[in-house]
Amino acid sequence: MTERIVVSPGDLLGDGVFETLHLRPSGPWLLEEHLARLVRSSSILEMPEPPVDRIRSAISDLSVSSGALRVIYTRSGVLNVSVSTIPATVLRERREGVRVLTADLGFTVRKPPPWSLSAAKSLSYASNFAARRWAARQGADDVVWLSTEGYVLEAPTASVVWLDGGVLCTVPPEEAGILPGITAEHLLSLAGPAGLGAAQRMITGAELSRAGAIWLTSSLRGLAEVVELDGVARDRSPWTPRLLDLLGF
Amino acid sequence: MTERIVVSPGDLLGDGVFETLHLRPSGPWLLEEHLARLVRSSSILEMPEPPVDRIRSAISDLSVSSGALRVIYTRSGVLNVSVSTIPATVLRERREGVRVLTADLGFTVRKPPPWSLSAAKSLSYASNFAARRWAARQGADDVVWLSTEGYVLEAPTASVVWLDGGVLCTVPPEEAGILPGITAEHLLSLAGPAGLGAAQRMITGAELSRAGAIWLTSSLRGLAEVVELDGVARDRSPWTPRLLDLLGF
Repeated sequence: MTERIVVSPGDLLGDGVFETLHLRPSGPWLLEEHLARLVRSSSILEMPEPPVDRIRSAISDLSVSSGALRVIYTRSGVLNVSVSTIPATVLRERREGVRVLTADLGFTVRKPPPWSLSAAKSLSYASNFAARRWAARQGADDVVWLSTEGYVLEAPTASVVWLDGGVLCTVPPEEAGILPGITAEHLLSLAGPAGLGAAQRMITGAELSRAGAIWLTSSLRGLAEVVELDGVARDRSPWTPRLLDLLGF
Repeated sequence: MTERIVVSPGDLLGDGVFETLHLRPSGPWLLEEHLARLVRSSSILEMPEPPVDRIRSAISDLSVSSGALRVIYTRSGVLNVSVSTIPATVLRERREGVRVLTADLGFTVRKPPPWSLSAAKSLSYASNFAARRWAARQGADDVVWLSTEGYVLEAPTASVVWLDGGVLCTVPPEEAGILPGITAEHLLSLAGPAGLGAAQRMITGAELSRAGAIWLTSSLRGLAEVVELDGVARDRSPWTPRLLDLLGF
């Protein structure tokens, strides 16, 4: 099923916000967090606030109970809630891990432009797709963006989480000027009960390569372990199945 | 008239290319150049080549003979050709000039990422709109982006052209990693007959402020003279009406 929607040509200019959620038989996973981020993104884009009640209704009315749930809201007011099959690559990456390249995004974290949308999940996703195509051309699955200063930022469609000794770490979104990762934040909130510490830290690409384990986290993947970083194979972490279990996968 | 088109939700993710042309009673201005750039942009995005013959037919079939002509082509194959009224602000800027701020884009020209789309006119335009909103909030009309090294790049929806002595200059698109400006290139091609030289040069923001005249050029504006740069008023250039005339405005 390919859903069709009616829009104006201007709605195709990437000027809006979206969220992707994991729709589970128990309901949309971390719904409140995703709705809150959608509202935050729209605020960064200085556009009308998304109609959260209408979004809740649309989700309640869905005829399917699992899949990739996408909520789109454009500046002109187009709202779309749709569910599609979770791509096979996502399932494979969750199971088998990902081969990742780090690459300089060409952007500084020191002085982002005052109109920067990098902390919002905007519909302008062409560069995110382009970065992943580039990784695929190099024989990798994904890319981790570094700032021009060498700091780890995020992946085009995922956050970066790593294990430093007994501490589960992720990048501080505000300091790095990146999208706050909902799955990453949720995972870190579960670190204590799992016997791990939790921290947000700036880290360079070189430091990351020495981490005990590295994962890409996102709603649909949950987490995918980085099994190869810049061409260097990494041992599988015993934490991967435990953390996936914690996330309900 | 608000045109409506039918698309898939994924078409709203800014993953495609577009062009804006000035539709004149004599036909779409610089049509071949815009079609060639649309094809180049699609190549940079590694997407299917736009159906140029279908685009020509759609333009021939238009029921209006002037306005802002937009051609949109998404990765999934949605093609849209539409005409809208030229915004009143564009006409005013062409007549009265623009107050412009320079601002650091936070991007380096030294080492753009290998997947960079900055030389393509992609549908991911949210940051372009955001930069112009930021300028408006500061009481200006537009912004000229600088690289982190201080080089003049482009405006969110226009190229930068300036007069250095008797030489009409613009930024070299390849070296700066920016969209090649069709109006700017056309204007420079007319410099000789107008008694001016023409050159592509990298220039810093500070150097630009000492130029004899500065313009923003684009299909719909033709050119708009920069009458205020970073809060400093500038004398009107006698070249502005002459160059507008050369461009057929």
